[in-house]
Amino acid sequence: MIDSLRIVEVGPRDGLQNEKTLIAAADKIALIDRLSETGLRSIEATSFVSPKWVPQLADAAEVFAGIARKPGIRYPVLVPNEQGYERARAVGATEVAIFTAASEAFNRKNINASIDESIERFLPVLERAKIDGVKVRGYVSTVLGCPYQGEVPITDVVRVAKRLHDLGCYEISLGDTIGVGTPAKARAMLHAVAAEVPMSALAVHFHDTYGQALANILSCIEEGVRVVDSAVSGTGGCPYAKGASGNVASEDVVYMLEGLGLSTGVDLDRLVDTGRWLSGLLGHATGSKVTRARSEA
Amino acid sequence: MIDSLRIVEVGPRDGLQNEKTLIAAADKIALIDRLSETGLRSIEATSFVSPKWVPQLADAAEVFAGIARKPGIRYPVLVPNEQGYERARAVGATEVAIFTAASEAFNRKNINASIDESIERFLPVLERAKIDGVKVRGYVSTVLGCPYQGEVPITDVVRVAKRLHDLGCYEISLGDTIGVGTPAKARAMLHAVAAEVPMSALAVHFHDTYGQALANILSCIEEGVRVVDSAVSGTGGCPYAKGASGNVASEDVVYMLEGLGLSTGVDLDRLVDTGRWLSGLLGHATGSKVTRARSEA
Repeated sequence: MIDSLRIVEVGPRDGLQNEKTLIAAADKIALIDRLSETGLRSIEATSFVSPKWVPQLADAAEVFAGIARKPGIRYPVLVPNEQGYERARAVGATEVAIFTAASEAFNRKNINASIDESIERFLPVLERAKIDGVKVRGYVSTVLGCPYQGEVPITDVVRVAKRLHDLGCYEISLGDTIGVGTPAKARAMLHAVAAEVPMSALAVHFHDTYGQALANILSCIEEGVRVVDSAVSGTGGCPYAKGASGNVASEDVVYMLEGLGLSTGVDLDRLVDTGRWLSGLLGHATGSKVTRARSEA
Repeated sequence: MIDSLRIVEVGPRDGLQNEKTLIAAADKIALIDRLSETGLRSIEATSFVSPKWVPQLADAAEVFAGIARKPGIRYPVLVPNEQGYERARAVGATEVAIFTAASEAFNRKNINASIDESIERFLPVLERAKIDGVKVRGYVSTVLGCPYQGEVPITDVVRVAKRLHDLGCYEISLGDTIGVGTPAKARAMLHAVAAEVPMSALAVHFHDTYGQALANILSCIEEGVRVVDSAVSGTGGCPYAKGASGNVASEDVVYMLEGLGLSTGVDLDRLVDTGRWLSGLLGHATGSKVTRARSEA
């Protein structure tokens, strides 16, 4: 039996939401449809947060309604509240993602709420999702550091992850939002969370701001995680460090995993082609080193 | 007792030799002198190969004679043969580095010799060095793949590393020249070599062509290696893949090692400053993600 790992492709949402070049809805649809042909099993399609917060994804409904959803692929969408949930449901979303931060300061600064209050705001969404049979994924951000408070206690990460899981999230994605984490810290954080939430319900989500993402993923795989978030072409940048790298590139993750003998089901050639096409649309170099290495000989 | 690790800074040699922008000798001297103030304990200063092969380092003698060598820091220089050894000795070098590839095809193509013949060519250098009390470092390249033959048998890597060690090299640097390796393969290769050469006499040398370098370093550290080659600002590129990344950036390595609790003695702030200064000279963006993350907020 081959050990396998599921990649959650977050490029169309987490990647694009931090890209300055506005992409047409038709191109977003083409992106997701291309990704659906690569073998990926989870593709986060868009976000139903307010267009005031994320202008790039103001076309969420149009995009989601326009994609060709393939059987066997999950297409979660981010929702900030019950209103966003309703907009997502109106176009047929069957999986949503909710989010909070493990950092008190981050929640205070961004939504003027405590961690607990931020979670309570999602209770109506979680109730509705349960009734509707909609799966809910939970994001915990700032798990290895916060741009406002610096260190984030692991106990806070564990508490938030466990609460989201207890409330019905089938999977909790642990995110190093500012990419400051290093492998031993990432592993210790995951180890602590896995003591309270089953490892099979955990995912890791690394940004490559400090170049540590692949090493962090490696250490978390060694610890037992088998779900990894990444974004084709390494899109996204970092709102807290201009010019810095964004999400870890899916191409580079797949390359490493294949080398480790972990099956992802992803066709790397197709993924590289899609990433190259996307970086052309965005008008900047790809964030994938695998793609750059393959570009010219 | 704190676990420590020695970084061998190869930017002034392996990094610059693949950079197209010619750097003045005075700037190379300034680079090495700046690096000497960062806490680095090994800085490969230049190469005495023929200027026909490496025009960038045609000023090797001038550069080596011009640097302010600090006590406690090693300044190895690459030598291709006895003539290069003599040129290096004439300006006072007390440590040299020799090199071969673990790939038969690579040696055939580059120097029209078998692996064994390529090593025999260095026998006069090794004899002279022994007499002169000069330390010799040995590079084995293409340890995880070759641009000509593809796969490189681990048994060839082990054989070449052991032979260089038996011949008197105090340290063998195992290099993934084209950066194709992934963590489990890197670790298995190191494990096999360490069965024949003491781990304390081994170093790893990764290029970041496919973005795998830090993950590979991590897995080799877990396996026990405590010497890592890297280049400030990630200089170098890859002659076999245009536009691809070069040596792994020292800044990013130090950042990871500090996070792992491994002491390098290197002042990261000074290293980042030096890398930023160097990328300005080279006229392209730094290859260090740590430096980019720190550049603007």
